[in-house]
Amino acid sequence: MTRRVDLNIMDDLAEALTQIVGVDHTYVGNAISDDYAHDEALTATAQMPAAVVQPSTTAEVAALLRLAVELGVAVTARGSGTGLSGACTPTAGGMVVSFERMNTIIEIDEENHVAVVQPGVTLAELDAAVAPHHLIYPVFPGEYGASLGGNVATNAGGMRAVKYGVTRHHVIGLEAVLASGETIRTGGKLVKTSTGYDLTQLLIGSEGTLAFVTEATLKLYPRADFQATVLAPFSSIDAVTTAVPRVVASGVGPLILEYIDMTTMSAMTSHFGFDLGIPADVKDSAFAYLVVMMEGHDAERLEADVARLAEQLTELGAIDVYVLPPPAANALIEGREKAFWLAKANGADDIVDVVVPRAAIPEFMTNVAELAAATSSWIAGCGHAGDGNVHLGIFQPDAEVRERLLHSLFAAGMSLGGAISGEHGLGTEKQRYFLELEDPVKIDLMRRIKTAFDPHGILNPGKIFG
Amino acid sequence: MTRRVDLNIMDDLAEALTQIVGVDHTYVGNAISDDYAHDEALTATAQMPAAVVQPSTTAEVAALLRLAVELGVAVTARGSGTGLSGACTPTAGGMVVSFERMNTIIEIDEENHVAVVQPGVTLAELDAAVAPHHLIYPVFPGEYGASLGGNVATNAGGMRAVKYGVTRHHVIGLEAVLASGETIRTGGKLVKTSTGYDLTQLLIGSEGTLAFVTEATLKLYPRADFQATVLAPFSSIDAVTTAVPRVVASGVGPLILEYIDMTTMSAMTSHFGFDLGIPADVKDSAFAYLVVMMEGHDAERLEADVARLAEQLTELGAIDVYVLPPPAANALIEGREKAFWLAKANGADDIVDVVVPRAAIPEFMTNVAELAAATSSWIAGCGHAGDGNVHLGIFQPDAEVRERLLHSLFAAGMSLGGAISGEHGLGTEKQRYFLELEDPVKIDLMRRIKTAFDPHGILNPGKIFG
Repeated sequence: MTRRVDLNIMDDLAEALTQIVGVDHTYVGNAISDDYAHDEALTATAQMPAAVVQPSTTAEVAALLRLAVELGVAVTARGSGTGLSGACTPTAGGMVVSFERMNTIIEIDEENHVAVVQPGVTLAELDAAVAPHHLIYPVFPGEYGASLGGNVATNAGGMRAVKYGVTRHHVIGLEAVLASGETIRTGGKLVKTSTGYDLTQLLIGSEGTLAFVTEATLKLYPRADFQATVLAPFSSIDAVTTAVPRVVASGVGPLILEYIDMTTMSAMTSHFGFDLGIPADVKDSAFAYLVVMMEGHDAERLEADVARLAEQLTELGAIDVYVLPPPAANALIEGREKAFWLAKANGADDIVDVVVPRAAIPEFMTNVAELAAATSSWIAGCGHAGDGNVHLGIFQPDAEVRERLLHSLFAAGMSLGGAISGEHGLGTEKQRYFLELEDPVKIDLMRRIKTAFDPHGILNPGKIFG
Repeated sequence: MTRRVDLNIMDDLAEALTQIVGVDHTYVGNAISDDYAHDEALTATAQMPAAVVQPSTTAEVAALLRLAVELGVAVTARGSGTGLSGACTPTAGGMVVSFERMNTIIEIDEENHVAVVQPGVTLAELDAAVAPHHLIYPVFPGEYGASLGGNVATNAGGMRAVKYGVTRHHVIGLEAVLASGETIRTGGKLVKTSTGYDLTQLLIGSEGTLAFVTEATLKLYPRADFQATVLAPFSSIDAVTTAVPRVVASGVGPLILEYIDMTTMSAMTSHFGFDLGIPADVKDSAFAYLVVMMEGHDAERLEADVARLAEQLTELGAIDVYVLPPPAANALIEGREKAFWLAKANGADDIVDVVVPRAAIPEFMTNVAELAAATSSWIAGCGHAGDGNVHLGIFQPDAEVRERLLHSLFAAGMSLGGAISGEHGLGTEKQRYFLELEDPVKIDLMRRIKTAFDPHGILNPGKIFG
């Protein structure tokens, strides 16, 4: 439904864009930085857009979308560009609406425990702003430079999801511009509503294909003063993933519950240069590690909970249980957050983040090992074990073999009741598997929803649906 | 888009329905019980349907919807009929699909903390089934006879929402039949996913207008062993509603946080015949009450938390603070749950459940008092103060005056950033205000979504959109 614009239209476009956002915030042709051509997805092909604009108000965004419909130009929203699925890769001949200038924290409402932010605000900026109020926005997808707009578009998750859930659970209101240029407000500073369809929830995770979010209302929580990090080596991946549902069931309420396989742990400690002080003999017999971070408002209670957890982990077969001193704990958690960069530095050809029911992780990991062996691939991983979200670095340079491997891997996850992506999204890079493996009735239904929002197909075409 | 069926079609319909669900589960004409003509909404006009069917399988539901499209007959899903907005009121000449026979608890999965249920299962049945596993499904909208299917359709809330959230936060997967007769499965035993649009969330709260839910996957939580209930009388409504955000901010994490005005409290104790043991002089100076229920897995910690809460309530101006003995606590909570029946028994003409930002309750209550005075109406209430959801009994027999009053009352809530309904829904009874007060751009968008699901308009016509 969108078409490549020819050169005359390009001139018209540049002129019209300049009138909307000003000459200093309109880039066309060679003036466009390469950065806008891609996100961080390992496999995505960079694509230069015809134009990049940096609006500063919702009214400007609305004018840009009206213009896009008028000229039939594809439009892609962009936050910090830290996505891992190619969801903000531009369309050839299309326009990128980059939200870096819409980066105001509009309000921190202490009474309602709410923050109202523009989409270009980063997680780091938001955290710095709410910390003095002793509040926290609890979604940490591991990249503090990520923008809230991007987080909303992909329904970002991260390590703390086992306690707090994901972006979807903390965004309670949105302002969004429709393809028609009309602006709507959904939800609000409300923890519940039953007043028509929930447009907030529908827009979250829609990867910029339904509307452009220009403001988000976020739930905040009292910030915990105390944290403790426990590391437990196990003699097999199976032992560690089997332990996970038991730890959750105990009601101890971990903030973070991650597994790290021996390969990833060893690469992590050497790459980032930290030592967790684990004796050599334990290291030698450890095939996988469980990391459990706890938090609390009361130091004594936290200490008692950690003792209870340690006891439980021992019963569940941990070789030993270490309560890490803060510097080691920070290094480990930061290392885990940067696992993507580690995989990239080590030459991973792709990264996936299949999600399965928590208790199905052991079976899924067995499938993964079999598929790796069958295709002579190497797969290393770590994951949000507490919520079944397994992150795997795929080392298989042959694109065709890799595609077959990923197809089988996603099929295996789905046959266990899982989904292709827990938090990275489909973008351009995982959509082919979605189209191959998902129920066509659901895909058709989603396409009809897409058309209900965007009849001319100008919003981020080529994402999710191909 | 739907049309009244004539008598010949009626015969065909009855015959066709019998072939799908059997003669024992097909009711037409005088064989239909009056119960199917209404829910519990005070203002709704009962409407007999042309037929009632009780399917026992998803395949039967699918066949019924295919038939409905073929014959152009409106179809309304019905759970236990305990709704308060007329959302399951039949359409004249239409068919009711009643889910009472689809009442199997399919699975209680202890490892993933999940229950899978058919829509006709009641909250009481589910609670009885999960309790032996020391688990809980935490949504309690106050009516234990309500069905899970109805809870999903209205995004039911209830008193525990301040701690646990509402239905939307605990339903992680659905099976649903589309108007086309096609069956889809959404989500799963997954706490996160970023794989296409979230159809689960879109169906929740859609009041049976988008698809018929035939199975729901629900999150369960470790059941707390200890509970404590605190009652604090205050000398004004303003004092009590001002205290609410402070209690939430303290991080004490209440399970229940309700305000009850003096009228409602007095009616409640006399109607249900219980005595909370509050001295007469305190009663005389109490204009509103705050009820705080706490729960915990550890008795000592709970006791310490209750002591801290009591201290805080005193600082916030409570006349006194009572930790209620279990029988009095149970009587009070049960009385609060039955506040709707109390209002009905006392002759309330309508019930509303406006939701506003938590901190806006004092201002909203001032508006309510002014609107009551201006229209010579009497308004009594209580509410889920912790989440801004105010339940008001409206005593104004003149329908025209009442309609004006409600319009103003909803407008006041919305201008404070609120919504018409926090948990009852729009159904037939609140939709006129929705259509009058909501942004027409959003209503049009919702209509287009409706059409994407139900192009022939057979699913519960006349609800939400009029």
